[in-house]
Amino acid sequence: MSYFDAASAAPLHPVARQALLASLDEGWADPARLYREGRRARMLLDAAREAAAEAVGCRPDELVFTPSGTRAVHEGVAGALAGRRRTGRHLIVSAVEHSSVLHAAEVHEAGGGTVTQVAVDRTGAVDPAAYAGALRADTALACLQSANHEVGTEQPVAEVAEACRAAGVPLLVDAAQSLGWGPVAGGWSLLAASAHKWGGPSGVGLLAVRKGVRFAPQGPADERESGRAPGFENIPAIVAAAASLRAVRAEAAQEAARLRELTDRIRARVPAVVPDVEVVGHPARRLPGIVTFSCLYVDGETLLHELDRAGFSVSSGSSCTSSTLTPSHVLKAMGVLSEGNVRVSLPPGTRAEDVERFLEVLPEAVAGVREKLGAPAPAARSRQEDAIVVDAVGRRCPVPVIELAKVIGDVPVGGTVRVLADDEAARLDIPAWCEMRGQEYVGEEPADRGTAYVVRRVS
Amino acid sequence: MSYFDAASAAPLHPVARQALLASLDEGWADPARLYREGRRARMLLDAAREAAAEAVGCRPDELVFTPSGTRAVHEGVAGALAGRRRTGRHLIVSAVEHSSVLHAAEVHEAGGGTVTQVAVDRTGAVDPAAYAGALRADTALACLQSANHEVGTEQPVAEVAEACRAAGVPLLVDAAQSLGWGPVAGGWSLLAASAHKWGGPSGVGLLAVRKGVRFAPQGPADERESGRAPGFENIPAIVAAAASLRAVRAEAAQEAARLRELTDRIRARVPAVVPDVEVVGHPARRLPGIVTFSCLYVDGETLLHELDRAGFSVSSGSSCTSSTLTPSHVLKAMGVLSEGNVRVSLPPGTRAEDVERFLEVLPEAVAGVREKLGAPAPAARSRQEDAIVVDAVGRRCPVPVIELAKVIGDVPVGGTVRVLADDEAARLDIPAWCEMRGQEYVGEEPADRGTAYVVRRVS
Repeated sequence: MSYFDAASAAPLHPVARQALLASLDEGWADPARLYREGRRARMLLDAAREAAAEAVGCRPDELVFTPSGTRAVHEGVAGALAGRRRTGRHLIVSAVEHSSVLHAAEVHEAGGGTVTQVAVDRTGAVDPAAYAGALRADTALACLQSANHEVGTEQPVAEVAEACRAAGVPLLVDAAQSLGWGPVAGGWSLLAASAHKWGGPSGVGLLAVRKGVRFAPQGPADERESGRAPGFENIPAIVAAAASLRAVRAEAAQEAARLRELTDRIRARVPAVVPDVEVVGHPARRLPGIVTFSCLYVDGETLLHELDRAGFSVSSGSSCTSSTLTPSHVLKAMGVLSEGNVRVSLPPGTRAEDVERFLEVLPEAVAGVREKLGAPAPAARSRQEDAIVVDAVGRRCPVPVIELAKVIGDVPVGGTVRVLADDEAARLDIPAWCEMRGQEYVGEEPADRGTAYVVRRVS
Repeated sequence: MSYFDAASAAPLHPVARQALLASLDEGWADPARLYREGRRARMLLDAAREAAAEAVGCRPDELVFTPSGTRAVHEGVAGALAGRRRTGRHLIVSAVEHSSVLHAAEVHEAGGGTVTQVAVDRTGAVDPAAYAGALRADTALACLQSANHEVGTEQPVAEVAEACRAAGVPLLVDAAQSLGWGPVAGGWSLLAASAHKWGGPSGVGLLAVRKGVRFAPQGPADERESGRAPGFENIPAIVAAAASLRAVRAEAAQEAARLRELTDRIRARVPAVVPDVEVVGHPARRLPGIVTFSCLYVDGETLLHELDRAGFSVSSGSSCTSSTLTPSHVLKAMGVLSEGNVRVSLPPGTRAEDVERFLEVLPEAVAGVREKLGAPAPAARSRQEDAIVVDAVGRRCPVPVIELAKVIGDVPVGGTVRVLADDEAARLDIPAWCEMRGQEYVGEEPADRGTAYVVRRVS
């Protein structure tokens, strides 16, 4: 088995395992107690906080441990918004933030706050000027990830931090994907991260809040973790998280170069060995281990199953693989194809031969899925006025695009075809197909059944 | 070293350690993913949920794992209150709940809700009739611990649950101290618990919400744990928690009998070997492993240090040992002495000879502390009208009581003595001393400096 989904969760680093085992016997007691076992637990906790703070680039008393990266984000966003409530209730996020940030923003909006989502370009990056333009007099908090979790694109954090600083607005950086590779550059005010993304154990997040940032923790508190993260500290896991962060940092430069070479290989070779593929994300300003591509006429879930059977664990932002049946908000915001989407995220230590094997297996897996889907019950097709109509109502992605591709040859150049569909993914995938195929996407219209997506044949 | 503070945190049970190690290699992946590692993690999580639900006495889909018992309480209280917001915003708690419950109640009150605290008797138990009397038409939620964490007294949960059921009010039971010993009897609606109290790892709480209970999770959610506990699941720790719960339950009946015999011994022998001691908590309806007593004229922190030096780790509800410098709200609500307070909570497996050694060491440790404190700079004493006045302003507990004890012999029977003090603990300890000594506590009066506590000599 080759596990290529490190962006979801990395396998436990050997140093994390060692540190966890060692501190199970030393770190189980209550660090608030005065007796020997408590003092020992307190020493372990203090040492872990110092090590983590050094890796983050902050003071130990600016950093608390939370039960997960998600909770670090939730508590960081809520605390910073409440701390600056007098300034206003405006929150800025990028359109491609992790769902934990977007969920926190939804709660803020439901509570009467306002939220601006800053758009991204086709590579998934925000434009620092556009981000700066969203800052207002009543902006309480701005959020920006250090790098995107689905496509690996790095965000211009330092520039955005500078604009926020000039406007007097704190910037919260979700560093979940990048902290193992290095500290976040620039003048951030709050930072959140998650240990299991760098090979630490589950159950540990970090929240750093710089001195001077107004911060009012929300919800019931207790005396633990400076009143910012209630509940008994999970010290063995915290020790393992800090130790493994230090360990992966020591290997980071070398491993980054190695993984970048491997993902460059995938970026270059996939379009050569698989027809009708779009590689997404920024080609250069990106995390070393992540590469994402989408395959036309492919159902993401079936492709994942095929790859799993072939021994590869990857993930997908396609609608068919998520419980909500909507395509990834990241791919949507980038305006790229979401169907047949595959994210490959290599854990440190990935061997070149496993990547080569993946590149061997992939074309066959894609072809197999396409073959299965190539013979669906043909969608009803009828002439209506001068336009060909494809009726794909009730059919799930990628069928609407497959049916569109089948008829485009019958459309006279300059003529249009109307695709009727009610799968939400079609709204994203039909324009993306047009862009890839050099056809013109005219737009969508309401229809008696579903929505009509109008495409003009250009060539 | 003898660790006698299991009620804070129990050392890791060998079964928890084994299960944790085994699942570090199998349970690190994202259980929401479709590939092999994800499916394996999902299977572990499902099996742990089934085992935990069986031990709790609920359906697996009624139970979610949270990052701690504290978070289980916070999220349980907030979700149940929000789910019944239309009924009203009245919350009932007992006066001796764990601070996590009281903190959740404070937040509710700060948000405009109302809270009734049901008083307890001198043993720490609520009266079911008094609890039932607090139920109102606008009561959204009632909370009651299964047993008290400081004195071990068991609460009449089944009777209170029946009253709540009759009134149509859900009852949340904080079962943190008792779940390792057995399921909570009676018709509770929500239940919270904490794995590290039964020998499971840190980082795992349980929240059970019975089907049919209106529940609206608060704060940002995600798709994990039925939307009730956001953030990546800590599966190795969850597996260890469930496995160790099953293991301690298998040993519970036998171990409960053994520990009860040991705590009975402490209850009986401490007053015999240490003068001026009050053993608190219910003598019979109590947890097997907890026994708590308070020593007159003793500073809790110094006594804990002495016992730690002698090799015993215990905790204290005395004001001097907490960061807030106020005595335990539990001892306060019970109206018992808080000074020189010691809680002994025996972990399963405690050996009888260690208890015997504790009983040997204790009298000397107490005597040593008393000797040190017995020669404080004498407080100014003056006659004012017909009353003796002891000026202990600026002196910390237990000095005010020590000074009171020194002068009571000088007071004519029927006469009064006024103790001037500004330590908050005096408000609790002077009446408690009167009760123990058969003197009459007349009451308190404002004074130029501090508060005047008036005591009448009866005998």
